[in-house]
Amino acid sequence: MEIEIATIGGYEEVGRQMTAVRAGDDIVIFDMGLNLSKVLIHDNIRTEGMHSLDLIDMDAIPDDRVMSDLEGDVQAIVPTHGHLDHIGAISKLAHRYDAPIVATPFTLELVRDELDDEQKFGSDNDLIEMEAGETMSIGDSDEIDLEFVNVTHSIIQAINPVLHTPEGAVVYGLDKRMDHTPVIGDPIDMERFREIGREGVLCYIEDCTNANKKGRTPSESVAREHLRDVLYSMEDYDGGIVATTFSSHIARVKSLIEFARDIDRQPILLGRSMEGYSGTAKRLDVDFPSDVEMVGYRQSIEQTLGRIMNEGKENFLPVVTGHQGEPRAMLTRMARGETPYELDEGDKVVFSARVIPEPTNEGQRYQAEKLLGMQGARIYDDIHVSGHLCQEGHYEMLDALQPENIIPAHQNMSGFSGYVDLASSQGYTLGRDLHTTRNGNIIELV
Amino acid sequence: MEIEIATIGGYEEVGRQMTAVRAGDDIVIFDMGLNLSKVLIHDNIRTEGMHSLDLIDMDAIPDDRVMSDLEGDVQAIVPTHGHLDHIGAISKLAHRYDAPIVATPFTLELVRDELDDEQKFGSDNDLIEMEAGETMSIGDSDEIDLEFVNVTHSIIQAINPVLHTPEGAVVYGLDKRMDHTPVIGDPIDMERFREIGREGVLCYIEDCTNANKKGRTPSESVAREHLRDVLYSMEDYDGGIVATTFSSHIARVKSLIEFARDIDRQPILLGRSMEGYSGTAKRLDVDFPSDVEMVGYRQSIEQTLGRIMNEGKENFLPVVTGHQGEPRAMLTRMARGETPYELDEGDKVVFSARVIPEPTNEGQRYQAEKLLGMQGARIYDDIHVSGHLCQEGHYEMLDALQPENIIPAHQNMSGFSGYVDLASSQGYTLGRDLHTTRNGNIIELV
Amino acid sequence: MEIEIATIGGYEEVGRQMTAVRAGDDIVIFDMGLNLSKVLIHDNIRTEGMHSLDLIDMDAIPDDRVMSDLEGDVQAIVPTHGHLDHIGAISKLAHRYDAPIVATPFTLELVRDELDDEQKFGSDNDLIEMEAGETMSIGDSDEIDLEFVNVTHSIIQAINPVLHTPEGAVVYGLDKRMDHTPVIGDPIDMERFREIGREGVLCYIEDCTNANKKGRTPSESVAREHLRDVLYSMEDYDGGIVATTFSSHIARVKSLIEFARDIDRQPILLGRSMEGYSGTAKRLDVDFPSDVEMVGYRQSIEQTLGRIMNEGKENFLPVVTGHQGEPRAMLTRMARGETPYELDEGDKVVFSARVIPEPTNEGQRYQAEKLLGMQGARIYDDIHVSGHLCQEGHYEMLDALQPENIIPAHQNMSGFSGYVDLASSQGYTLGRDLHTTRNGNIIELV
Amino acid sequence: MEIEIATIGGYEEVGRQMTAVRAGDDIVIFDMGLNLSKVLIHDNIRTEGMHSLDLIDMDAIPDDRVMSDLEGDVQAIVPTHGHLDHIGAISKLAHRYDAPIVATPFTLELVRDELDDEQKFGSDNDLIEMEAGETMSIGDSDEIDLEFVNVTHSIIQAINPVLHTPEGAVVYGLDKRMDHTPVIGDPIDMERFREIGREGVLCYIEDCTNANKKGRTPSESVAREHLRDVLYSMEDYDGGIVATTFSSHIARVKSLIEFARDIDRQPILLGRSMEGYSGTAKRLDVDFPSDVEMVGYRQSIEQTLGRIMNEGKENFLPVVTGHQGEPRAMLTRMARGETPYELDEGDKVVFSARVIPEPTNEGQRYQAEKLLGMQGARIYDDIHVSGHLCQEGHYEMLDALQPENIIPAHQNMSGFSGYVDLASSQGYTLGRDLHTTRNGNIIELV
Repeated sequence: MEIEIATIGGYEEVGRQMTAVRAGDDIVIFDMGLNLSKVLIHDNIRTEGMHSLDLIDMDAIPDDRVMSDLEGDVQAIVPTHGHLDHIGAISKLAHRYDAPIVATPFTLELVRDELDDEQKFGSDNDLIEMEAGETMSIGDSDEIDLEFVNVTHSIIQAINPVLHTPEGAVVYGLDKRMDHTPVIGDPIDMERFREIGREGVLCYIEDCTNANKKGRTPSESVAREHLRDVLYSMEDYDGGIVATTFSSHIARVKSLIEFARDIDRQPILLGRSMEGYSGTAKRLDVDFPSDVEMVGYRQSIEQTLGRIMNEGKENFLPVVTGHQGEPRAMLTRMARGETPYELDEGDKVVFSARVIPEPTNEGQRYQAEKLLGMQGARIYDDIHVSGHLCQEGHYEMLDALQPENIIPAHQNMSGFSGYVDLASSQGYTLGRDLHTTRNGNIIELV
Repeated sequence: MEIEIATIGGYEEVGRQMTAVRAGDDIVIFDMGLNLSKVLIHDNIRTEGMHSLDLIDMDAIPDDRVMSDLEGDVQAIVPTHGHLDHIGAISKLAHRYDAPIVATPFTLELVRDELDDEQKFGSDNDLIEMEAGETMSIGDSDEIDLEFVNVTHSIIQAINPVLHTPEGAVVYGLDKRMDHTPVIGDPIDMERFREIGREGVLCYIEDCTNANKKGRTPSESVAREHLRDVLYSMEDYDGGIVATTFSSHIARVKSLIEFARDIDRQPILLGRSMEGYSGTAKRLDVDFPSDVEMVGYRQSIEQTLGRIMNEGKENFLPVVTGHQGEPRAMLTRMARGETPYELDEGDKVVFSARVIPEPTNEGQRYQAEKLLGMQGARIYDDIHVSGHLCQEGHYEMLDALQPENIIPAHQNMSGFSGYVDLASSQGYTLGRDLHTTRNGNIIELV
Repeated sequence: MEIEIATIGGYEEVGRQMTAVRAGDDIVIFDMGLNLSKVLIHDNIRTEGMHSLDLIDMDAIPDDRVMSDLEGDVQAIVPTHGHLDHIGAISKLAHRYDAPIVATPFTLELVRDELDDEQKFGSDNDLIEMEAGETMSIGDSDEIDLEFVNVTHSIIQAINPVLHTPEGAVVYGLDKRMDHTPVIGDPIDMERFREIGREGVLCYIEDCTNANKKGRTPSESVAREHLRDVLYSMEDYDGGIVATTFSSHIARVKSLIEFARDIDRQPILLGRSMEGYSGTAKRLDVDFPSDVEMVGYRQSIEQTLGRIMNEGKENFLPVVTGHQGEPRAMLTRMARGETPYELDEGDKVVFSARVIPEPTNEGQRYQAEKLLGMQGARIYDDIHVSGHLCQEGHYEMLDALQPENIIPAHQNMSGFSGYVDLASSQGYTLGRDLHTTRNGNIIELV
Repeated sequence: MEIEIATIGGYEEVGRQMTAVRAGDDIVIFDMGLNLSKVLIHDNIRTEGMHSLDLIDMDAIPDDRVMSDLEGDVQAIVPTHGHLDHIGAISKLAHRYDAPIVATPFTLELVRDELDDEQKFGSDNDLIEMEAGETMSIGDSDEIDLEFVNVTHSIIQAINPVLHTPEGAVVYGLDKRMDHTPVIGDPIDMERFREIGREGVLCYIEDCTNANKKGRTPSESVAREHLRDVLYSMEDYDGGIVATTFSSHIARVKSLIEFARDIDRQPILLGRSMEGYSGTAKRLDVDFPSDVEMVGYRQSIEQTLGRIMNEGKENFLPVVTGHQGEPRAMLTRMARGETPYELDEGDKVVFSARVIPEPTNEGQRYQAEKLLGMQGARIYDDIHVSGHLCQEGHYEMLDALQPENIIPAHQNMSGFSGYVDLASSQGYTLGRDLHTTRNGNIIELV
């Protein structure tokens, strides 16, 4: 059976991931993501009403026109987890394919929100839930199966999809860290990966985000311990404490909520995206505090902040957006004194996030911290662990899967370099079984 | 009563700390340390046989000749903890003063070792044990007391000595982090610091090592959780694992021992300084595994490594010296293949330490890692937390103590700058109540 | 005679310089500058109509209230050169003093422009021209003289004022590099400095901007050679070339004009500040091309750019504002496609400037370059030399002046550190004859 | 005619360059270099007596065993310039091929020295001189010519060899910058490159050393102007001045000699490699001061330094080895006080070189500077320009040559990334006509 991999997006950058695997006549698409920075560099652009071709021209979503070179039928569109760089183009591209969208419940719910917000295109793709550990048959041949292997990432219910073919498995390994003690959900299923490795892996597509970083990405339990240490150290403080983190990072938000309560403060989640992700988590009945207050609309937020000021800042811990210093996010507006929440000398601001290392973010975050400092706030930053494998995780994955072919992804050439060095040291050869590639390429494996 | 502070050493560098406080006719000396880098830059120097004046000329030990300008009697020499930059010059300088050396038991034991190794000078100073929380009277006036307040640092039994005078307390605040969950010993005694603050603090001498770093230094429990995550992730590995850390870091060594056992490996401490510090900890009956094997002599080490190879590397976890890539340390010798312990492809090396950020160390560590990599070793580095306060710890200390005067220490001018900014933002004024100073100065407070 | 130095502004930052020297009953003020970054961090602030007290509260201009502690009469206000951090607060503060403003012709012309733009305050201070090398008498005592010693900086007609008193000279050494081959004007007058050194220097106030940088700041002739090399390398290019630099850097603008002509392109200076500084240079008849076209008003600029497009980009070299990527500057607007000038694939953009190393600038400049790149532009950056002494320049100045006292300025504590190390190595002692200080302090020298 | 490129060495690193081009039955080898860092990481290794296979195992010289897969006869071995990473393996590998070594006179002389020093192997390859601009016929087919195009680099007489085949030219573009005003020799022959481009280029192999650096590499004339500025600034200094630079950098050594004389000092070149390269330059009658004193042997150097001390340091400018702080180089030995030359407070040390950015070098250089500082020396560093193209040079080369295929070289994957981005933006496609490769690969072009 012929096996081809179309590396459509996310092979020259982090963002707008999209990969198609053809096995015989059947095609499965993994991820359809958005590169948000390509949108934000332009002033005043709203993507909801834009046409896909314009977004393709901006390099904001994958250029899926290469799909016409793949001969077969798309049988499934599989977003691997709910981050925008993996689901953010579904509303612009999925409607072109007569295929269901298959994902874990949390991811699927976020996809549904994306489709609801879309104004230009209508999609009638079926939405099919599948849990980690489950398998579904692909196409009519009875030879191809799609399996979801549980992985751990900075968002819950992330999976690595595996396409089982007669020629061996194709493992789409994007976006995970090797976490044996995640705060929500099961540990990464290394046992299953090793089993698949023994069965035979034709191709492994790997997330190279951190491939130039030494060592092992720590577990979320390490970030949780760090965060606990920080918040407990503030137990005696009787002024304002504000925290910010990635809205989609449900496990971190959960830790913030729990530690807030441990130090006798009421956590309140503030901001549209905070309410969006956490509200979804709550509805889906994951291991998340169901009784936490969330406020999404601007006007309600203002009222809530007013209430906090009235009842005493010392009784609350607002969890807000703005961890990158985004100019219009809640925390930055607080820093500019544009909200009812007043920061006083000595108030604490906790960034449970790392600055994404790019000068634009660094500049904005610097400004936000300066403004917070002008109000007297004290900054606790960098309380975080990455969601992506570092070199020793990659080493262990290769050891477990022993793939015949490797395709590095989720980076540019410079980002791939550490992975190429690693794979070369493990006996792979560039251009033979180690395929650095680019957007829009098709790799014939069989 | 006249109060003067002589800032003898460690006010233009990290290393060779020494400070004298005169209260009326009585003088107490805090620390007598060594700046090891000033020794190592010369080839082939052994300090044991050197004269203090030569070491002073090399800027390796404090120039205590300023002591002759202080009118009074030295009543005590108080090393605050067992690091060399605080006790390493005692064997060269203490014999000049007719005063006892007062320290916690673990620190005192290390001082005793220093005195035993000394070849040039003989010392007959009394050695007096005093525990954290205890107080002794100084001089004959009945007005001056010396108290040890428990603090937390990267070595056990660290204290901050406080000299209570009729004019208020002088708090010597060097070398601590604010740890509420240290792995060995009690948390930092913030309650006592706040009490002393309410009683009145004339002067606070503060450790500025990390004063330019934002946020809060994490607890040792965070490093422990990180280390646990790393070692547990290796549970299934059936080859060699080697770990290195600061020999004096008893709590870290303890964690290494415990996690080694958790993953079914026998920990063995190897190297003269490993045996020195851990042996002392064992003898003093601190909360440390008493049954761990330690080997200090070169020949025994070779034999032990041979035994490890014979019985199977997969059953052991050697804890060795060499975390900075020092050319003659155990780990570097292993990396060069100069020991019986053979590294194989895939073997793990765990650096539970951070590279001290100075080009010499960085170059040596880089070489060591290159050599380890040439043997196939996989590197896990930076599993560590600092032992020194960052900015928010400094903020909290000022809040607790509310001192009348502040003297930044344990850095150079550039290192002081973050502290000066912080103190200025809290209402202190450079040159009035915030005294940046230099080695060899005397500050008259009353 | 009593000599006091009031260190009013610019002793904790780069920006808002102001220093007063009292010699007996007479006071001379050196510089009254603006810290622009303190203004820009707020949205939508225009300083022209603001009150000085509000600007003081923002830390934007010097807090000159300490002047009331100096007993004497202000006899002169002496801006040393035309940069905003030295003259930008004159329009807000000078009117409070009954004293003339004394400066070199070019500086004085820029001061006049500042006073003309001011909307809140009216000033009737006399404006007195004095050239480098000249001296004027201060006060009625016949004992005090003010001399201008020629120095070299990144703006023309910079001087170091020297106040000669019976107690020795006070040399205000801000903002210079040691340039023996400046492109416009005379070399730095080291001979005079050495002479003054032999006569006796009571105090030297020094510009520490680059005091942590090793080596010697290169001459403007080195930047000129670098710029020549870059522009000549484009001689055969037949598309657009655009250059940007500091508007106030007359020597650099001159080089750009000359090399543009050498490669057969017509230089045109575009932008209000470009026209402002260069127009002033032209009027004052300095060694500057008198026949270059300058366009300052927005509408005329648009027309000029349209004309350039019509007549062929390959015939022109527009010199524009925007070297820091400022969002509203000409170059950034070109990069966004908001002007008639269209960039094509391969067009060259020359940044004859360095990014001021602060995250905000770095983020904006990064954005500007990204946008230029999206238009196909090729970037040549960092063609520049600093206007400030590095360590070896400081070493030479100390050697020449042999001052009794030194006051580091034009930096914060961290920035002073390299200078303190240098001065200490030359025998000065912190707190005795080496005075690190802060804004608002008064140092009594005699 | 079949055309193949064997990328033998230097495609995963900087160092040990070797490439073979097969055109029909004829093969030409470009470069046979040494990666010195792979030797130095081991203690006490001397390569002169070592076997090639051992050096291959150490990754120190190219693994030329892939040559057996190329069907044809080696007709020439062409070292492109005299740096060790291009000629350092000739003595170990050339004897295996029955082919002449063809190079420019200066390069050939250095090759001759390498062969003379070799102790393990004997070589009887013919040595053939060919000047830039000349062409020779390759093989018997009358269809293939080898041309030397003049380029500019940090060593004199560098060329880019071009193999003219019926299928188009193969341009071996390693190691050049685009210098229109080199200090010795002719400018880069861009006219010829453009001509070759018009005739048709099948393949361009390019030096990616600086491919991640923006802008244009400055001309040697810029470094010369910088150096002039530095040395002239010391004209009045009446103590010792010492300079160091790359021994092989004849143009820089020439500038040092000339400026030394301009400031009335006698230049003396000291050290074996200084004498080696400069002596060769002198013998070959290039544009180099023929009357400069050079001393190579250790004992003579000691005597010369003694003479300098006797006659007065202020009359000399020793030019010595040690620009990277190498532990046994002249300058480091001076810094340790191991030579008769005594450094005094204020003496100047000029590093006309940049630290090669690798932690080992950085550590050694840091040590050397520390030791120099302890003797009172003042440091002037970084007076240098790179010998390699930056991005805009690469852009111009692509514009001139318009090659059908591109092979990035002289870097690892991370180093290639900037070049891949550039080439992609110019319409090349990775894997199609843009070939990132590895050591030991063969690329079939026709």
